[in-house]
Amino acid sequence: MITVAVIGAGNVAQHLILAFQKAKDIQLVQVLARKPKQLTHLLGSHGIVTEYSQLKEVDLYIIAVSDNAIATVSSQIPFKNKLVVHTSGSMELNVLDSKNRKGVFYPLQTFSKAKPLDFSQIPIALEAENESDYTVLETVANAISTQVHHINSEQRKALHIAAVFVCNFTNHLYKIGNDICIENNLSFDLLKPLILETADKIITLSPTDAQTGPAKREDTVTINAHLNFLKNHTQKDIYKLLTQSIIDNGKKL
Amino acid sequence: MITVAVIGAGNVAQHLILAFQKAKDIQLVQVLARKPKQLTHLLGSHGIVTEYSQLKEVDLYIIAVSDNAIATVSSQIPFKNKLVVHTSGSMELNVLDSKNRKGVFYPLQTFSKAKPLDFSQIPIALEAENESDYTVLETVANAISTQVHHINSEQRKALHIAAVFVCNFTNHLYKIGNDICIENNLSFDLLKPLILETADKIITLSPTDAQTGPAKREDTVTINAHLNFLKNHTQKDIYKLLTQSIIDNGKKL
Repeated sequence: MITVAVIGAGNVAQHLILAFQKAKDIQLVQVLARKPKQLTHLLGSHGIVTEYSQLKEVDLYIIAVSDNAIATVSSQIPFKNKLVVHTSGSMELNVLDSKNRKGVFYPLQTFSKAKPLDFSQIPIALEAENESDYTVLETVANAISTQVHHINSEQRKALHIAAVFVCNFTNHLYKIGNDICIENNLSFDLLKPLILETADKIITLSPTDAQTGPAKREDTVTINAHLNFLKNHTQKDIYKLLTQSIIDNGKKL
Repeated sequence: MITVAVIGAGNVAQHLILAFQKAKDIQLVQVLARKPKQLTHLLGSHGIVTEYSQLKEVDLYIIAVSDNAIATVSSQIPFKNKLVVHTSGSMELNVLDSKNRKGVFYPLQTFSKAKPLDFSQIPIALEAENESDYTVLETVANAISTQVHHINSEQRKALHIAAVFVCNFTNHLYKIGNDICIENNLSFDLLKPLILETADKIITLSPTDAQTGPAKREDTVTINAHLNFLKNHTQKDIYKLLTQSIIDNGKKL
């Protein structure tokens, strides 16, 4: 039985808490949170502490806080030579205080409090300073997910950037689609089957094979009609840049 | 029983043929195709014709060809005062030859031959010149989909542009994510659960509520680290433009 403490109360912390509660062979001993109210629906008041001095000795401390708070949080853990990991895609291993053994436990997913997730399908990128610490992380990760990977800091940074493109930027394109619908008295619901199918295609087709649309066909008549229709300058700029990038990609094939 | 002929052999034509074959109360009488071989796996040789002179009189002709071929195809139909529709998101009703009654039958989805689809969930945008023609289109559309909508030409153009953002451009972001993975010896499979969840979130959350990531948080440290990491100029430009657009959107809230 590996004992774990989670530090944090945000989206990632909450989904980790839920996953550990269901996991065999993992004992979630404590959660440390500045804002414990965010967690009472998950834990009751039992198991939540607010002060670092209340932290118990466990096998693994998982810091699930915002990137810029990781260094401070890790320096406040009142132990030495324990295994302490953060959950960030973009932060170096060395942002963690060196009084403890460092590692990374990065679940690659977009977490919203309002939406439940099947953690077993979420890839977890692991990094540790030595083999025995890596084995502990691997055991904990395998207890909640079937997608566990050893990924070094440089690769993790690349993975995080790729995630920004396919998740954050994609969601912003949904926002633009939504805005265009609203401006034209159309329901955004009309676009939802298309959004789901566009994502679903990628499971079986490569993005190059899945590409469709006027840019792929270099259909300049339609492209110009669309640019003419768009009045919002940012939408126009995004349309132009992505269209040109699709056309340039087609020429490389 | 409404009789239908489909003209075309591409992605949209093939998925329509499959849908009509399963539909009650719709008789798919003929398919006219310049390249009949593309359709023999669906229809055998029976029911496929290659010459306009072979076209029979039916209640509805559906032209599912590329945008720039619609006008020519519609002018070659050897009948007058029949109901003829195209399936394009971006073309005007009036691109159709005026010797016949015009309409639009636009299924809003991304079609790939290689991937089967549940047509019943695909929104179909309808337009006709008069009420009785509209009723015919509505009957045919209802026979294959539960999502049938009356959408005028101007709205249809807006819908098509919105579709380009949420489908074609989104797929291109997947392509960039794939490229970043390949460059860093990472499997694109790592991103697939994230891609699916990003799409799935939009069913229950608004795009504004679903937005996450460094741009949403105005986390300039991470944003600059990402820009520093990206060497490809197009990727950098897309990163900058979409990040700024997300930040600007946040300020409007």
